[in-house]
Amino acid sequence: MSSNRDIDNLIELMAKLPGLGPRSARRAVLHLIRKRALLLTPLADSIQRVAETARECLNCGNVGTSDICDICSAEKRATGELCVVEDVADLWAMERSGVFKGRYHVLGGTLSALDAVGPDELRIPRLIDRVETEAITEVILALNATVDGLTTAHYIADQLGGRVRLTSLAQGVPIGGELDYLDDGTISAAMRARKDV
Amino acid sequence: MSSNRDIDNLIELMAKLPGLGPRSARRAVLHLIRKRALLLTPLADSIQRVAETARECLNCGNVGTSDICDICSAEKRATGELCVVEDVADLWAMERSGVFKGRYHVLGGTLSALDAVGPDELRIPRLIDRVETEAITEVILALNATVDGLTTAHYIADQLGGRVRLTSLAQGVPIGGELDYLDDGTISAAMRARKDV
Repeated sequence: MSSNRDIDNLIELMAKLPGLGPRSARRAVLHLIRKRALLLTPLADSIQRVAETARECLNCGNVGTSDICDICSAEKRATGELCVVEDVADLWAMERSGVFKGRYHVLGGTLSALDAVGPDELRIPRLIDRVETEAITEVILALNATVDGLTTAHYIADQLGGRVRLTSLAQGVPIGGELDYLDDGTISAAMRARKDV
Repeated sequence: MSSNRDIDNLIELMAKLPGLGPRSARRAVLHLIRKRALLLTPLADSIQRVAETARECLNCGNVGTSDICDICSAEKRATGELCVVEDVADLWAMERSGVFKGRYHVLGGTLSALDAVGPDELRIPRLIDRVETEAITEVILALNATVDGLTTAHYIADQLGGRVRLTSLAQGVPIGGELDYLDDGTISAAMRARKDV
């Protein structure tokens, strides 16, 4: 408690952010107040703008500031390749890698019997629509290599069966990875998928 | 990079907060966008309000939303006791403990030969003013138990010499502290300051 209502209120809200607790929220707020011109005012404006405009893309589920996100509305990204990811964070990771030039489809999670997440809780019906209506030539499944991720991949493969070329990310040794520290699953996956040099 | 300028901008600013890096800033921003009504909008309003109103108290150096902070302007806190702290964070910590009912004076740091911080870089002249002009009966030095903190305490004691009762926080074993894990300095301080049971 900072002895001031407005500041306490800000600290409480900051403390709700993932990765921040009450203590780090207090530090962050003090830092903001000290760096008013440099950080506090710009952050206030920026967060206000995002609060007013941020929304989910109606087409792919990415977050943006318009009904159709910048990727979906960029003509040059209509390559016919559609990259399916679980989550917006995964889409951002793909974008950072800069390797993919097509469009995305964000499922919004994975099928999960435990959490009772079925195809209709996810954006799977919409995915099938898109494959039928847009000129999609290849669907790339970039789901996490978890049990739920694999289940979801199988289900989608089942639904799309044959309508379109279906690929998934290669599994193997990560760049810079040391065999000694890799789990057996990764090593055997890399072994099975070995390539001629 | 999130494929959207406004959102990228917000992520960049959030990443400048202490305790947040690029990765956790991305997580925080996604979390905010998902919890729009619950978190994003309230946070935007709150941070806007603080950005417009936050300032240093002209009297004690605490941060608040008015020229004279709530503590300095609260009549019932004119107990004649003045608690001297290094930093606003220390003032907040004292307030959380709820043990002190008087007013504060925030130095804004400690004397430091290395960093060339002299009395005039701190709020020490202002402290002496206050002792002379306000009806101060006791000055409590609540400075950190560091070399610079002790130096500063000595300097202030020197300046105020005799004008007012001067006390400092007790040193000893922290509540719940295990001797085995305490440094020798703390143990000998606690030993020297031992009390009859």
